[in-house]
Parts: sequence; C-alpha cells; structure tokens
Amino acid sequence: MILYDTLRSGNAWKVRLLASLLDIPLERRTLSIDRGDLKQPAFQAIAPLGQVPVLELPDGSHLAESMSILFYLAQGTTWWPADCQTQARVLSWMSFEQEHHMKPLAQLRLHLALHRDRDPMSEEFTRHAEQAKRALELMERQLDRQSAHGWIATSNAPSIADVALYPYTCMAPMGGIALESSPSVRAWLRRIEALPGYQALFPAEPERNHSTQERP
Amino acid sequence: MILYDTLRSGNAWKVRLLASLLDIPLERRTLSIDRGDLKQPAFQAIAPLGQVPVLELPDGSHLAESMSILFYLAQGTTWWPADCQTQARVLSWMSFEQEHHMKPLAQLRLHLALHRDRDPMSEEFTRHAEQAKRALELMERQLDRQSAHGWIATSNAPSIADVALYPYTCMAPMGGIALESSPSVRAWLRRIEALPGYQALFPAEPERNHSTQERP
Repeated sequence: MILYDTLRSGNAWKVRLLASLLDIPLERRTLSIDRGDLKQPAFQAIAPLGQVPVLELPDGSHLAESMSILFYLAQGTTWWPADCQTQARVLSWMSFEQEHHMKPLAQLRLHLALHRDRDPMSEEFTRHAEQAKRALELMERQLDRQSAHGWIATSNAPSIADVALYPYTCMAPMGGIALESSPSVRAWLRRIEALPGYQALFPAEPERNHSTQERP
Repeated sequence: MILYDTLRSGNAWKVRLLASLLDIPLERRTLSIDRGDLKQPAFQAIAPLGQVPVLELPDGSHLAESMSILFYLAQGTTWWPADCQTQARVLSWMSFEQEHHMKPLAQLRLHLALHRDRDPMSEEFTRHAEQAKRALELMERQLDRQSAHGWIATSNAPSIADVALYPYTCMAPMGGIALESSPSVRAWLRRIEALPGYQALFPAEPERNHSTQERP
C-alpha cells in the first residue's frame, strides 16, 4: 500500500508508527508543502481536502483521515480490541484526540516551533495552550486510573487510541507545553517507545536511495 | 440507557436521531447550559470535558463523544456496515464531519444565530464560512458521485456517517450558509427526513410531564 505523507505531519506519523508496529510494509510518498505538492490537482483528485495522510488501498481506492486509516490497518490485530464496548472507548479517545488534543497541540507546534510566525502571547495561542494543558491533564488522570501497565483505553494491550494520541503528546514540548507535571503521560510515552517496531518521526534511513523524501 | 444532552446540541441530536431510527429507547436527561449544569461536579465526574452527549451504558459506565456513541448503538445493524473497507470509509466521513464540517457550522450557528454575540463580518467568521462552504461542496460532490439513492459512505443503506453529518448540515442556514447551490445535499436531507423513525431536533412532546426538559 502507498502512504502519502509529509515529512513532519504528526497525523501521518500515526499511520507510519502503527504500520511499523504491525510490520505492514508501506511505500512512502512524501509530499512537500513548500513545493505546493498538496495543492496539485493530481493530489487533490485523491484527497479533496488537500491533506495527508492518505492511504492507497490494494484495490487502488484512497482512504483519508488518520483515524480511519488506523482503524483499517488494525483490523484482525489486538490494536483494535474484540469487545464492542472497548472498541467504542477506543473511538471515544480517538475522537478526543482529534477534537480537543491534536488541534491545539498541532497549532502551537506549527506556528510557534516550525514557522515561528505567531506571537505566543496572543489571545489565540493562550487559548490553544489552555486547551492543550486541559487535554494532557485528562490523559494524565486516565493513565493514573489505568494500572501501571495500562494503556489509554485498554488494560492488557495497547490500542490504536494510544497510537493516535502518541505523536502530538510526544511533540507537545515543541509548542511550549511541558510534560514535567505529567509523570503518567511521560511513562506512557516511554512504554510506547519501547514497543518492538516503534518508529520515530524521522526514522534512521537505510543505505538506499529515497528519492521522494526530504531531509529534515 | 440514559442520554445526557442539552436542548439544542446538534451532537446530542445525532444520538437521539439514531436511537429513534433504530427504535432504541433512551431516557433523556436534558441539561441546561444557562443554569450551569455542565459545570456541576456531578456532571464533570462522568464527563470531564463538560460536554454532551454522554451515554450511560447498561453497566453504569459512561461513553462520551458522539462518534463513539453512534458506533456503539449501531452495532449489529445495517447502520454499521459489515465490510471492513466500508467501515473505514464510514469512519473517514465521520472524522471529516468532526474536523472540517461540524466545527465551522456549529460556531456559525452558535454565535450568529443563537447567541448573536459576534460580528458575522469578522475575520474569524469569514474563515468559518469559507470552511463550511468547502465542507458542503465536498458533500455535494460525494453525493453526486453516489447513485440517486446513495448515501454519503454507502450505496444501499444509510450508515452512521449520514446520521453524523445530518444535524449540522440541516442547520447550516441558521449560521448563514445557504444550501441553494447544493441540490444533492438537499435531496439527501429529505431522504433522511423520510426515514421511518426520523426525529426532529425538537420532537413533538407526548402529553406527559418532562420535568428535565426546557422548552425551546
């Protein structure tokens, strides 16, 4: 399967992370925002919103939205638990990630760390910081409630809710959101990073030509 | 099961609509934002984000986020299709609804129609209007692509993606977003409204006392 991503997209990192944990090979097509790749008609034809990640499925059709791609890749594995009530809890945390967690954390990282084009003291960014801290407090409380080896929505094995929440939690300090007062969150990040097949945002490159990849 | 909602919440309407279409009885506990019900410790204990809808499940636990509740209620019905790739497409459209559709449409409705506390010409609301129009254009193109009896993510029978997209599409004109140039969207709204069990935002009240409900 082909994954359309960009070099720094946290939403696309979720997909590469799960594929790596599941040992599913993905052919990576890394687009450049600066070069305008996301606005090209060829890309917009498969992704009308002009956003990554997009996964090309074996039948040639395309699937957008990280939540949906994680769900698709996890079928038949323990990352999508068997019990329907637990599945609903996984989706609830993934919905929380999209609405209350990723949005403020991604904005803070994008504008304060990557582009450096906004004032961190502006009303908008103060609001983002408050929302981000509240989201992390909720994660901290949830992880406290789970056992020491618990995951965000499950007890025995991690789920795609953990994969969905990992990238923007891990990158929170880039947007000025410290994790010092979130010991359970930090321990959970380390547990994910210790999983066999874990993949960093910028994985070490094997000794071969990656013509479609930019260097960080 | 008990549903915590508010009188005008479009996200809670999704849940009542699906429950009514599926003939699942829900006991409605309608909270008042004006009275500060959502900030009460008793509600925050079951909904840390202080948001509706929240569904109390038969085992007494609580499920937040409309997407997750729709998924839970639809299990074992045609509203959650059997095929995994179709399920992923349903989730993709539900994710689109949350991120690109509901957010701008709900903001426009809330501040321009319900509270009337913002300037419709402000930069923020011009941006919301652009995003909302783009989301509706995408729905129009998707519904055009489907057959005349097609649904947003499925062909033969509606799915929870249709339920998720219905309320804020239907209420778009309240926020100043006309549907005149979206004939396929308007026909789809009418198809949903013609389904047996369809329930309006303010259902006709039976002749009994609803002590927990405010009047519109």
